[in-house]
Amino acid sequence: MSTKDNQPKARLPRGFGDRSAADIRATERMLATIRSVYERYGFEPVETPLIEYTDALGKFLPDQDRPNEGVFSFQDEDAQEARSAEGASGKKGEWLSLRYDLTAPLARYVAENFEKLPKPYRSYRAGWVFRNEKPGPGRFRQFMQFDADTVGAASPAADAEMCMMAADTLEALGIPRGQYVIKVNSRKVLDGVMEAIGLGGDDNVGRRLTVLRAIDKYDRLGRVGVSELLGAGRTDDSGDFTKGAGLSLEQSTQLLSAFLPAPNVGPIERIPADIVGEDDAKIAFGTRSVGATVNDYLLDEWEVNTVSGSPTGAAGVAELREISNVLKAAGYGSNRVRIDGSVVRGLEYYTGAVFEAELTFEVKDDEGRPVRFGSVGGGGRYDGLVGRFMKDNVPATGFSIGASRLQAALAALNKGKAAPDAGPVVVLVMDRERVGEYQALVSRLRNDGVASEMYLGSSGMKAQMKYADRRNAPLVVIQGGDEKAKSVVQIKDMRLGKQLAEGITDNAEWREQRVAQEEVAEADLVAAVKRMLGRTERQR
Amino acid sequence: MSTKDNQPKARLPRGFGDRSAADIRATERMLATIRSVYERYGFEPVETPLIEYTDALGKFLPDQDRPNEGVFSFQDEDAQEARSAEGASGKKGEWLSLRYDLTAPLARYVAENFEKLPKPYRSYRAGWVFRNEKPGPGRFRQFMQFDADTVGAASPAADAEMCMMAADTLEALGIPRGQYVIKVNSRKVLDGVMEAIGLGGDDNVGRRLTVLRAIDKYDRLGRVGVSELLGAGRTDDSGDFTKGAGLSLEQSTQLLSAFLPAPNVGPIERIPADIVGEDDAKIAFGTRSVGATVNDYLLDEWEVNTVSGSPTGAAGVAELREISNVLKAAGYGSNRVRIDGSVVRGLEYYTGAVFEAELTFEVKDDEGRPVRFGSVGGGGRYDGLVGRFMKDNVPATGFSIGASRLQAALAALNKGKAAPDAGPVVVLVMDRERVGEYQALVSRLRNDGVASEMYLGSSGMKAQMKYADRRNAPLVVIQGGDEKAKSVVQIKDMRLGKQLAEGITDNAEWREQRVAQEEVAEADLVAAVKRMLGRTERQR
Repeated sequence: MSTKDNQPKARLPRGFGDRSAADIRATERMLATIRSVYERYGFEPVETPLIEYTDALGKFLPDQDRPNEGVFSFQDEDAQEARSAEGASGKKGEWLSLRYDLTAPLARYVAENFEKLPKPYRSYRAGWVFRNEKPGPGRFRQFMQFDADTVGAASPAADAEMCMMAADTLEALGIPRGQYVIKVNSRKVLDGVMEAIGLGGDDNVGRRLTVLRAIDKYDRLGRVGVSELLGAGRTDDSGDFTKGAGLSLEQSTQLLSAFLPAPNVGPIERIPADIVGEDDAKIAFGTRSVGATVNDYLLDEWEVNTVSGSPTGAAGVAELREISNVLKAAGYGSNRVRIDGSVVRGLEYYTGAVFEAELTFEVKDDEGRPVRFGSVGGGGRYDGLVGRFMKDNVPATGFSIGASRLQAALAALNKGKAAPDAGPVVVLVMDRERVGEYQALVSRLRNDGVASEMYLGSSGMKAQMKYADRRNAPLVVIQGGDEKAKSVVQIKDMRLGKQLAEGITDNAEWREQRVAQEEVAEADLVAAVKRMLGRTERQR
Repeated sequence: MSTKDNQPKARLPRGFGDRSAADIRATERMLATIRSVYERYGFEPVETPLIEYTDALGKFLPDQDRPNEGVFSFQDEDAQEARSAEGASGKKGEWLSLRYDLTAPLARYVAENFEKLPKPYRSYRAGWVFRNEKPGPGRFRQFMQFDADTVGAASPAADAEMCMMAADTLEALGIPRGQYVIKVNSRKVLDGVMEAIGLGGDDNVGRRLTVLRAIDKYDRLGRVGVSELLGAGRTDDSGDFTKGAGLSLEQSTQLLSAFLPAPNVGPIERIPADIVGEDDAKIAFGTRSVGATVNDYLLDEWEVNTVSGSPTGAAGVAELREISNVLKAAGYGSNRVRIDGSVVRGLEYYTGAVFEAELTFEVKDDEGRPVRFGSVGGGGRYDGLVGRFMKDNVPATGFSIGASRLQAALAALNKGKAAPDAGPVVVLVMDRERVGEYQALVSRLRNDGVASEMYLGSSGMKAQMKYADRRNAPLVVIQGGDEKAKSVVQIKDMRLGKQLAEGITDNAEWREQRVAQEEVAEADLVAAVKRMLGRTERQR
């Protein structure tokens, strides 16, 4: 034990948080709903540990130019590992890292167990991931993701399935159709446009990445901020300068017009409103026949104008068209899943389709202004990630939900709707010598399935009643010496008492005493408690 | 992407493991059962993050004499933290650690939120913890614990509640009464005995710890091994020498006879068999009146002989007696919760009662010999841990389940009982051009709640059937060109087909074709699938 003079502070590092009972219960409900949708889609759970070899995870985080930045890493001290590591001397061994996402570990898992898995392999998992980044408001260094992945399927139908599953999940969680959209794009289309403006070839790998990162920041920085990052660079509010991609004004304009909606006019707003939504598959538009969707319209435009002359871009459009066709056949209109050029996704490992799940309803920002809730998840195709470990590449696609962020969205939607969880029945300790007897009362209740407890502190009756109130106890059981002599107990209905006390000011105390408290035989305790709990339930 | 010449290996560091679908589902069921018992006891969930300041966790691990050994630690790179840390220079900041248990973080949480929590504060949580130790068979560096704690209750009734809750939890999980025992001891009794043999006082803190660690190893090393560790020291199989406590033979013998059962004769075996078990509360023994239990017998013996002359020891016995009385009142005989002198618990922070949940049924060890399954959890009173952060000490007691270990026990108990989980209905892709139509069939099934999927690979019919078999699919839906022309589908019952093929060798193929496959109208797909799934369920 430390001395009281030199004691540690009870505090958490920034970017980490504790979770309350209400948080945990709400998350459990949310995870159970997501699981049930994923199981209906034929996905099965598989989980990996939180620590992996650093080299197995690879370096695919956005905005991390220095090695190991963004990741919590440490050297293994397992002596046997150290001995087996080439060139290692002394006790320390290889580098280990906390996982920064659930995709890189899954790729390791699939590669390690490739022969024994069914292929295509559909799986899902929820788990904590870690980012060794600068924490900020709403920006945590530990957060939960819920991922689904299909490995071994090159078909765009696998990408379409991810989008449908994301849409079904949000609706199963109570987010109404029209208040979310699954946006889809393709890294190949993005590459195609970059080729078209002269950023093709191996020499431009770094620049292409800088461009993608710039577009990915559209939601946060807007059109002007992205333009700066495409050009010379941008100085943020804190004075930090980020070097830009160095595009010419013409290149930059071409890029922006291809992918980013004009100020305040998204792709949806640029076409007649009546073809958007549930019925868009039934409505003709322009040169398109009956059955065309907003997605078809956009893909036509891209094919003719945006990726013209780029084989990579054309391949991307063709894949998106296949995705669009599967979606139409399965009855998912572009009001649910929509092609959108502004979707990039920050992680480096994506190779084809990329997705983003966005909630479109408004919440208030820190300054009280209304803003779209925004992204709660995303994903895409990562055909190279499993192949890192293997002789051949293995096609794969996945979708990752930001569980904490989605939880916040559900809380915003359900604000004020959820009743606080009921606490246990509390048996007061009126006579310290008779602790065993009070415990016996509690045991009878528990054995019959009633959540209950004996007061375990050392305070008097008033503090015990306050405790019961704080615990949100529906009922309190009291047995003083007089009651013991008569073999009875008093059961006080805390909620009914509160309602009566609040509602009737005239002689409230007297009525409260009479109505909200019952004396019953000790032998009838369990039945009476159950009866009174039922009444409280009804009155809520 | 790395080049194929220089690719990372797909492997995990030693001491870490992946979890299969069956593992995850079994664990989820187990955790749900534990939660339901804990909620019935009035405990509510609270969770802390996996990372804490190293100084907030403290150093209480057993067998770790060097600072930070046993714990995964790294320096914070959060610049703001670094600036605020006294004397820090450069970018690196304070030390962070992965939690090694769930108790130290809870102590930090309670101290940080002391004013707003109800007191006593009952809470529970499940989570991963990490030990930076030498891994071995069944010895992991990441494992799951499920903890319950009551903070702010000095009463031994709080300790008794932990023991009852542990017993109820094991029974709720299907472990029959008589196949487990919750063993209870007190650090104060242990200290009392050490006082009695001349190991009292501040000068002997280190030696007392060495003695406790030696006794704690009884299960693994047996009487001889413990004797060596109490004396000069012990050389293990690998040749490593552990220095002993340096007790004289007389001291060592006195200790051993107080706490450890004589070879092959536990405390239970030393007294008449008929007072052990369900009815022990009703049976007189020796000088004891009717109502005495095995626990009372042991405590009498300890009071008179074992801790004679030590105030600390006498206080420990008095507390154990209170625990015993609450247990008796609540109807928990010493066949469920038993006082046992060999219980120590390895962690340093315990100050009073200590518990151990032991499963007594036998399993086979690595060499095929029958051994008791052993400990699946433990805990105790840690009155100093919350007080590390505060002006005053705060009494607290808790119980921690080793979730992975308990899971293994349940698997051993239920061996062969659990049917493998059913996979999804698989819709085959007979014609790649009609992927959208197959997807539409799947969507109809999913929308009606049937777990189902379209085959997403690129292989032919034979491989698709093999895939469905590997997925444990109950039904397969097939629609080739002929079926399409007639607007029908074939539904093949995979399980029934297997049963028929296995059971009837005579003309099996013909019968299998007829009985296990049905042709239904495309419009009737969902109803037919549900009917056939029901039949499969019944036949299992």
